Amino acid sequence: MTEGRSKGMLVVSNARDGSGGTIDLVISEGTIRAIGPGGAKETSDDVPRFDAEGGIVCQPFVDGHLHLDKTLIGLPFFPHVEGETIAARIEAEKRIRRQASGPIQMRGGRLIEQIVARGTLALRSHVDVDSGIGLKGLESVLSLKESHGHLVDIQTVAFPQSGVMRDAGTADLLDAAIAAGADLVGGLDPAGVDNDIDGHLDAIFAIASKHGVGLDIHLHDAGALGAFELRQIATRTRALGLEGKVAVSHAFCLGELGDADFGRTAEALAEAGVAIMTTGPGPVPMPPVKRLKSIGVRVFCGSDNIRDAWSPFGNGDMLERAGIVCDRQNFRSDADLEEAFALTTEAPAAVLGRSNSLQVGARADFQILPASSIAEAVASRPMDRAVFRNGVMLARGGRLLQAGV
Amino acid sequence: MTEGRSKGMLVVSNARDGSGGTIDLVISEGTIRAIGPGGAKETSDDVPRFDAEGGIVCQPFVDGHLHLDKTLIGLPFFPHVEGETIAARIEAEKRIRRQASGPIQMRGGRLIEQIVARGTLALRSHVDVDSGIGLKGLESVLSLKESHGHLVDIQTVAFPQSGVMRDAGTADLLDAAIAAGADLVGGLDPAGVDNDIDGHLDAIFAIASKHGVGLDIHLHDAGALGAFELRQIATRTRALGLEGKVAVSHAFCLGELGDADFGRTAEALAEAGVAIMTTGPGPVPMPPVKRLKSIGVRVFCGSDNIRDAWSPFGNGDMLERAGIVCDRQNFRSDADLEEAFALTTEAPAAVLGRSNSLQVGARADFQILPASSIAEAVASRPMDRAVFRNGVMLARGGRLLQAGV
Repeated sequence: MTEGRSKGMLVVSNARDGSGGTIDLVISEGTIRAIGPGGAKETSDDVPRFDAEGGIVCQPFVDGHLHLDKTLIGLPFFPHVEGETIAARIEAEKRIRRQASGPIQMRGGRLIEQIVARGTLALRSHVDVDSGIGLKGLESVLSLKESHGHLVDIQTVAFPQSGVMRDAGTADLLDAAIAAGADLVGGLDPAGVDNDIDGHLDAIFAIASKHGVGLDIHLHDAGALGAFELRQIATRTRALGLEGKVAVSHAFCLGELGDADFGRTAEALAEAGVAIMTTGPGPVPMPPVKRLKSIGVRVFCGSDNIRDAWSPFGNGDMLERAGIVCDRQNFRSDADLEEAFALTTEAPAAVLGRSNSLQVGARADFQILPASSIAEAVASRPMDRAVFRNGVMLARGGRLLQAGV
Repeated sequence: MTEGRSKGMLVVSNARDGSGGTIDLVISEGTIRAIGPGGAKETSDDVPRFDAEGGIVCQPFVDGHLHLDKTLIGLPFFPHVEGETIAARIEAEKRIRRQASGPIQMRGGRLIEQIVARGTLALRSHVDVDSGIGLKGLESVLSLKESHGHLVDIQTVAFPQSGVMRDAGTADLLDAAIAAGADLVGGLDPAGVDNDIDGHLDAIFAIASKHGVGLDIHLHDAGALGAFELRQIATRTRALGLEGKVAVSHAFCLGELGDADFGRTAEALAEAGVAIMTTGPGPVPMPPVKRLKSIGVRVFCGSDNIRDAWSPFGNGDMLERAGIVCDRQNFRSDADLEEAFALTTEAPAAVLGRSNSLQVGARADFQILPASSIAEAVASRPMDRAVFRNGVMLARGGRLLQAGV
């Protein structure tokens, strides 16, 4: 498929929607013009066709949390350096950063290509900003918007990986990062890393408020301490009118609270429109998805670390991520598997402010999965996905197509 | 590669061992004749060669726990039927068993082909034995030893899925199952399912003792109750001289005990040589691998349910299983990833009484993984594996070769 033809029309025939009904898609100029049964028959035979062979047409994945600047993908395998505390691992990462060759543009670019091939068409990347690296990492990731913007939509968070209070000058750097083009202000364990809950939150909320942008805060602090910080974040979100623009990533503490503490914390998050990002972590408690959603808290998924100084694991496959969440939350029914799929598609899309649904007039971003239902796709995790963006097929069978690169 | 040639010689060149050194393997008549640097050079050019292209040569996987009779692989996707209790799910499974078409030989055979293609060359399958199905399931699985014995070594456990005391006649059926060729006696939650710890354990240990075979007991019972049952199992194991022949599968309780209860339970298991099988479960506590091993308890891995009435998930990939255990146990260093790999290779091999190591004189069962180290293989989970059994390549790239079928 040439780029020229892609600006014209495309018909996707013999596809199925999530409920199993057979449908066709008619696409022109990157937009869905018709979706439903029989669209292929009403279209001229001259129009290029893609036979979905009965596969499910569904929303593309959105990765709500990763680190394009950290990944070591594209380099030889790097044995993990252990560190018992977050502080020790931050230092270990800095050592690895000095040792690892290969610029962020190469490593981050390789990662983007890998995840687009698996169906991810939008992402939110945290990018380290600290007194050592300054804004260099951010500038590199912003350059990926240029070099890889034809593959994926990139949102960036200026992330104070070394703390705000304990790394002097970082608050000013975060402010400069937003001015330089970062989309959101980040944060990190106000208690656990900075040892100053008010100082940390006051600083990052002030920057967000000044620029009128949202926040996405890493929170690993456990139990009642983490819950207290969540409520502090909710209070500040409402005070500054940032409802719907704030997310907290990880929030392991939500998985280990008693009923009363959980209830008042979840209600505070819901009232402030603070969303929770989870990877479905294995070794620690995780936010209970259904319980949070029943109280009105938005939950979404991301990959987090992918082959970097924090973990040798990870591949950015959001279909696998949906299955991991099912495993951790004991999701087995079709309805539950569909809910997990939504955590990797429509939920992060909404948090990123992206329209992701398949409807007439929408951008023709979608994927076709060889399965009879969304549930079967989540359970089987097929790699033979066909990934379309703006009506152009970018990837098939887990590999980028030349035309898309 | 024809079967005739495979009885002759084969040289695997340009391979690497676990520590990264380059080695060759010289194989004849299904046996490793030489292993080390330079073996290829000393062999006549007429001998068929396989270029490992720098990949790691390592032990094949052994799946220490699955259910060949339960899998629905090969059938259309079957939505999961929910059941809050184990009893409700046992009944749901019986309903599905009546509805699902396709004999065990077909479904179990398909599963074997899938896991052999991913590097598993030996397995322990539990097989339901109850008053409804009698020994029919066992007979079907035993027939897979004939039809699929060229691919995989199969060990069977007569598994009382419906209980022993609550399903009258099952004890006699278990006795008959061993006489008919099952290798071990199974068990299931003496308290949780049968509500009779002594009655259940007395019955199954009596059968094992009578036939001189081992046991492998499913134990989901939680906390102090599960720990009590583990100690009861250890006591009976020693009383009957069955040390080293008894395993307990799941034993979630070991992941949620206080130090004192954990200590005395683990010591009892170690003294009785009772091994623990874990899948690295997501929604429940899991046995702490390093802590158990430090006390002398053998731990090994299995897949358990693979696309059956109990779970729509699962693919039998033991390299993925090693990664799941790493995730749950927070294993990240190279040494930890190697330990997880051992849980899927040498540990289950030892429990199954199988020699699995690569040395001169051993059966030429091995796999070649495209990675620079075992740790990288566990982290990357490559599918391009070359799987050899008796010196014959059975599978490559995740697919069985025709010659192997």
